[in-house]
Amino acid sequence: MLLVKKFGGTSVADAECIRRVAQRVREDADAGHSIVVVVSAMGKTTDRLISLAQEVNGDPHDREYDQLLSTGEQITISLLAMALHALGVEAVSMTGPQAGIKTDDSHTKAKITAIEPERVQENLNDGKVVIVAGFQGLNPSSDVATLGRGGSDLTAVAMAAALKAERCQIFTDVDGVYTADPRVVGPARKQTMVSFDEMLELASMGAKVLQSRSVEFAKKYGVELEVLSSFEHKPGTLVKEVSDMEDVLVRGVAADKNQAKVTLRGVKDTPGIAARIFTAVAQAGVNVDVIVQNVSDHGETDISFTVPREDIKRVRELLTAMSELELREIQYDDSIAKVSLVGVGMRSHTGVASEMFKALSENQINIQMISTSEIRVSVVINEGLADTACRALHTAFGLDAEPTAS
Amino acid sequence: MLLVKKFGGTSVADAECIRRVAQRVREDADAGHSIVVVVSAMGKTTDRLISLAQEVNGDPHDREYDQLLSTGEQITISLLAMALHALGVEAVSMTGPQAGIKTDDSHTKAKITAIEPERVQENLNDGKVVIVAGFQGLNPSSDVATLGRGGSDLTAVAMAAALKAERCQIFTDVDGVYTADPRVVGPARKQTMVSFDEMLELASMGAKVLQSRSVEFAKKYGVELEVLSSFEHKPGTLVKEVSDMEDVLVRGVAADKNQAKVTLRGVKDTPGIAARIFTAVAQAGVNVDVIVQNVSDHGETDISFTVPREDIKRVRELLTAMSELELREIQYDDSIAKVSLVGVGMRSHTGVASEMFKALSENQINIQMISTSEIRVSVVINEGLADTACRALHTAFGLDAEPTAS
Repeated sequence: MLLVKKFGGTSVADAECIRRVAQRVREDADAGHSIVVVVSAMGKTTDRLISLAQEVNGDPHDREYDQLLSTGEQITISLLAMALHALGVEAVSMTGPQAGIKTDDSHTKAKITAIEPERVQENLNDGKVVIVAGFQGLNPSSDVATLGRGGSDLTAVAMAAALKAERCQIFTDVDGVYTADPRVVGPARKQTMVSFDEMLELASMGAKVLQSRSVEFAKKYGVELEVLSSFEHKPGTLVKEVSDMEDVLVRGVAADKNQAKVTLRGVKDTPGIAARIFTAVAQAGVNVDVIVQNVSDHGETDISFTVPREDIKRVRELLTAMSELELREIQYDDSIAKVSLVGVGMRSHTGVASEMFKALSENQINIQMISTSEIRVSVVINEGLADTACRALHTAFGLDAEPTAS
Repeated sequence: MLLVKKFGGTSVADAECIRRVAQRVREDADAGHSIVVVVSAMGKTTDRLISLAQEVNGDPHDREYDQLLSTGEQITISLLAMALHALGVEAVSMTGPQAGIKTDDSHTKAKITAIEPERVQENLNDGKVVIVAGFQGLNPSSDVATLGRGGSDLTAVAMAAALKAERCQIFTDVDGVYTADPRVVGPARKQTMVSFDEMLELASMGAKVLQSRSVEFAKKYGVELEVLSSFEHKPGTLVKEVSDMEDVLVRGVAADKNQAKVTLRGVKDTPGIAARIFTAVAQAGVNVDVIVQNVSDHGETDISFTVPREDIKRVRELLTAMSELELREIQYDDSIAKVSLVGVGMRSHTGVASEMFKALSENQINIQMISTSEIRVSVVINEGLADTACRALHTAFGLDAEPTAS
């Protein structure tokens, strides 16, 4: 079986951690598997490099930033190869460029455009463990480009797709995907399996296990993912395309506390005005999530929308500058949370939303905004009530109980 | 004018140092010169990487060692590019492989086999300062290989040769080549100019300014070198091919305190026995310097030779294992020093050696071994007398005085 195993920064934080990862890789190699390991930079390495950059230039050029940061993973791959050698395991390290990872030319947030896995494949054929630097590739100018946030997961998934690996294992500091955040919802259970679509909704709804980008890529190329703990030896959660999941109405509950709400009062009810606002916001690179527009009243309407909390300053500057909108008032609220129910079963069942609203109302939780997709219902509520809401919904949808055999 | 400027580890030890180097490069760029900068890893970076390697594997494979260590220079090049950008200077960083430096496949001590400088040249043509990682290149397997000790100087010289640069400037923590070590010999003077051959003899005789390898390369390709201070703005010493130097009998005095003497007593005076001994020593990778054999007496002879002090343990193991030599005694003395006089003028003048021996004898310094080349006379003496010898010779050969105009 060909396995791609990805270990993040906390899993390779120091020499001791790297030796532990090597030991774990050895077990799978001894079991006869072919193995590609994708690693991130060691714990604090990236931060240290960034602070060095800041000392010489407060606003470094992207190309040089990538040239600098890509050394972090290169350090980890060579150390892990050495650690495997010390255990008698044949292994070879490869930077992103050496591993044939090609990217576009957008430095610091490059997209993978192709993988030419011949060199990796040859080394696998020779029985070697191949260790690939995550987060980086070679751009059309023959420079190293980094993939941006979540880039190492993406490297692993893309490498698994290119090599047609049986499974891509993402080792993290959690041991799988839960029905809810176990730190908030006591009876939360670890999922054995979730579908790509559910994982996508959960990822974008604040479950930080996997980045949406990697899950989308895995779905597109049919790469079976497994999320599991770097520190404990136990099965994690499989993320795959599954057809027999209709029985599960609600897979999990997720809360996103990183959102802020913007409310525009007295928006002129003229065609095109909403388009102008949201085009401007999008051009500023801000990702708008939920949008709600009230029924028009006396030629004026209110529009509310949510944005990531770190972008609220930029949105405020933007809207303040657009005085031509002649808004009566702009309100900002960064004490909100978005709570979501996700499950592929919703496709064929109705009534999830109403049951959700009922459970919330029974707990005196006021709903400020609502948004839905085919397999998700989200509500925006007061941040202080988010944990209560998660617990209430987890119970209301029968997630507390052990799953019945299907 | 195209200048190649090389800054070593102490010159780029931290962000502050890197900003200072950038400032210095800017001055030359502003003066209209085309500039390639070659840099080493920041001060303690290499040591830190080596100690990380040791933590995971006491005996790391060379390929992975190079993969690891080459990140050191990559960090410096990107930081220096950023620092130049901060000063408004257009600059681009290149790893050894990006700069077209090709090596053979002997990891950790690779030789440069070719330089394909097209990419560097294009960027110079675009008016950019090109910053090249020293000490590394791409080997035939498309892996990074490091050049070993003095490799950054070599990168600079080779790059200067490939680009036909007007001058290769080596910035170090000394400000030039002196007639003797100024810490030992008070009246030592900085040389304005020395020939390649003299520099080669001085380098191999313990003057640590430049590695022999780089000087040989510069001589071979006619690259004019300049050794100057990283910290002060003043002219250094030019190293070049010069024809009008016959007037100078002795260019300088050098002492090498890093040698040890091995004396083999009672060597059977049989043909081939010396060859067996020195073949074995050479195969162990130990560089023998001075060799002296006494006149044979009763079918036995004594052989003395010097080796680098760090190799004395290896030589001892080797000779102890060669019991078939039936030596009467093996003596080791690591409290010796080799003191040398160097000057191209010796080619056409005689009497330097005898004058040297006289000066030493007048100072009650006993000569243990003697070795000469066309432009050098070296003596092995007691280490404790080396400083006295240097001072005496410096005076005896008129080096204390200010040079007369030629």
